[in-house]
Amino acid sequence: MSAVVENSAAQEELLRHRASIDNLDAALIHILAERFRHTKAVGALKAAHEMPPSDPAREERQVARLRELAISAGLDPDFAEKLLAFVIKEVIQHHEAQRS
Amino acid sequence: MSAVVENSAAQEELLRHRASIDNLDAALIHILAERFRHTKAVGALKAAHEMPPSDPAREERQVARLRELAISAGLDPDFAEKLLAFVIKEVIQHHEAQRS
Repeated sequence: MSAVVENSAAQEELLRHRASIDNLDAALIHILAERFRHTKAVGALKAAHEMPPSDPAREERQVARLRELAISAGLDPDFAEKLLAFVIKEVIQHHEAQRS
Repeated sequence: MSAVVENSAAQEELLRHRASIDNLDAALIHILAERFRHTKAVGALKAAHEMPPSDPAREERQVARLRELAISAGLDPDFAEKLLAFVIKEVIQHHEAQRS
């Protein structure tokens, strides 16, 4: 196969992967939007019933569970944990904004 | 409704939201695992064909598209952009590790 033909096949393969990545990113955005609908409702509920805004024991269980799920799915568990921490940080900021 | 009954209803509602959040988090982990399978293949393809590891024009289009999707889904577009940046940073670190 000539270098030009080979490179064009590689370009096509790249475009196929990118189309999948774009679909998966759209799915991620919609799942995150749905997740925030629930955490927003939790924030309102906690504020109305004077429950503590954060729950370290719950967060610890979430981290342990997501690390296990990540391992079984072939995803780096440290990355999964960092990502959850990133999302939870954003949620807590939203809760604090809801209270003030 | 007494304060105790009201609080127990609030606790039940909290548990329902948490069950949904746990399901959505499992979906997130699996979509991310699938996304990494594609970006890993892209990394291998780029390394084999000496294509540049990053593509700023592609990333710019991804950000613009995800911001629009976030807005239509009711998700903070700044959060969506920060999250994509976080995921792409991880992907680039993986690509660099694949090359070295």
